[in-house]
Amino acid sequence: MHRTRVKVVEGALDANNTLAAANRADFDRSGVRVVNLMSAPGAGKTALLECAIGGLDGVRVGVLEGDVQGSLDADRLAALHVPVTQLNTDSGFGGECHLDANMVRSALPELPLDDIDLLVIENVGNLVCPAEFRVGEDARIMVSSITEGEEKPLKYPLMFRACELVLVNKVDLLPHLDFDLDKFLYNLESVHPGVRHILVSAKSGEGIDEWRDWLTRVAAPAEASV
Amino acid sequence: MHRTRVKVVEGALDANNTLAAANRADFDRSGVRVVNLMSAPGAGKTALLECAIGGLDGVRVGVLEGDVQGSLDADRLAALHVPVTQLNTDSGFGGECHLDANMVRSALPELPLDDIDLLVIENVGNLVCPAEFRVGEDARIMVSSITEGEEKPLKYPLMFRACELVLVNKVDLLPHLDFDLDKFLYNLESVHPGVRHILVSAKSGEGIDEWRDWLTRVAAPAEASV
Repeated sequence: MHRTRVKVVEGALDANNTLAAANRADFDRSGVRVVNLMSAPGAGKTALLECAIGGLDGVRVGVLEGDVQGSLDADRLAALHVPVTQLNTDSGFGGECHLDANMVRSALPELPLDDIDLLVIENVGNLVCPAEFRVGEDARIMVSSITEGEEKPLKYPLMFRACELVLVNKVDLLPHLDFDLDKFLYNLESVHPGVRHILVSAKSGEGIDEWRDWLTRVAAPAEASV
Repeated sequence: MHRTRVKVVEGALDANNTLAAANRADFDRSGVRVVNLMSAPGAGKTALLECAIGGLDGVRVGVLEGDVQGSLDADRLAALHVPVTQLNTDSGFGGECHLDANMVRSALPELPLDDIDLLVIENVGNLVCPAEFRVGEDARIMVSSITEGEEKPLKYPLMFRACELVLVNKVDLLPHLDFDLDKFLYNLESVHPGVRHILVSAKSGEGIDEWRDWLTRVAAPAEASV
């Protein structure tokens, strides 16, 4: 009984990974690099994209916007004159709390892959399940707002481990919060040693150039890894 | 085929509701009122509990603390000398992103039901799935931090509909954010007309007396509904 159950779970995992590989092959065929942007609700993913996309010289960006319902963020990003495709997850029971490879695959026909260099997939706001599903991306970015507290890496370790970059957002609020930045960075390092982080603020502009440079390097076709 | 699939989903829903009713019966037998406290990660559930529990005169409180991993919040609350039981969800694949009736049921033997009047179940930080699972509670409370933005009720409508009280937290930060409180309340009213809300701040103490009064009324055995 136990062995059978494990086998089923492995099968489910493989289905997602198989579909992620199929997505990856399609992205490669079109020469598109892909990042998966994840965070808790309200951490500032869309605002940070608004800041970065405007200044990405020479990089044609497209966005796949994942939400349970509605197209509020997609509408904000479309105002920047980049192609934005909305992917809603509310056809599932009560709404899926994450994107998986199959959902992204279902959106591929709507994406102008031959006209972009970099696809940003903005995941559903959630610190648990999005980390469990690869979707065929080159890199995963997570945004952690300092308003969420220092202990988040310890409480949601999988999410903080499943990314190549951590954007520590809303640092303009540091003077107004009881937030110990050193403690947060210590906790981050303890769950994901050596992970790159950038202190950013969509409001003050701090760190935005560095975040933009990071995206530009990911989008560069010559660069094999980030 | 279609009909079979629908039947399976209904069966799964029923299993949770059946278990929620069993939990409810056990709570009633011990005369315990129960609230289910939900929010995004870092919205301030634990801090608001710390504020309220201290001043609940004559109400014996217990806490069931739901987290993917660790016992950081449980340790904070145990310092208030109330019985706290930790329920971790990481035995599932990558960690479950919510509590359901069966998980709460598994914790019942560890809860001192005969020695408390009010059980607070602190759910996993997530604005999607916790709203989909009743656990046998009398009332559901959600905490929305103003740092998360005005549009959250529109993006996560099920969560904002599935509660009897919305605590609008961190209002001490209003002067430092581009947050339009009227717009948030308008959005809240549009997805859940007439729902009660309280503006609170665990830092400044604003609204804490009102939140404490609300909890005290829920805990009162004579009160049939909230």
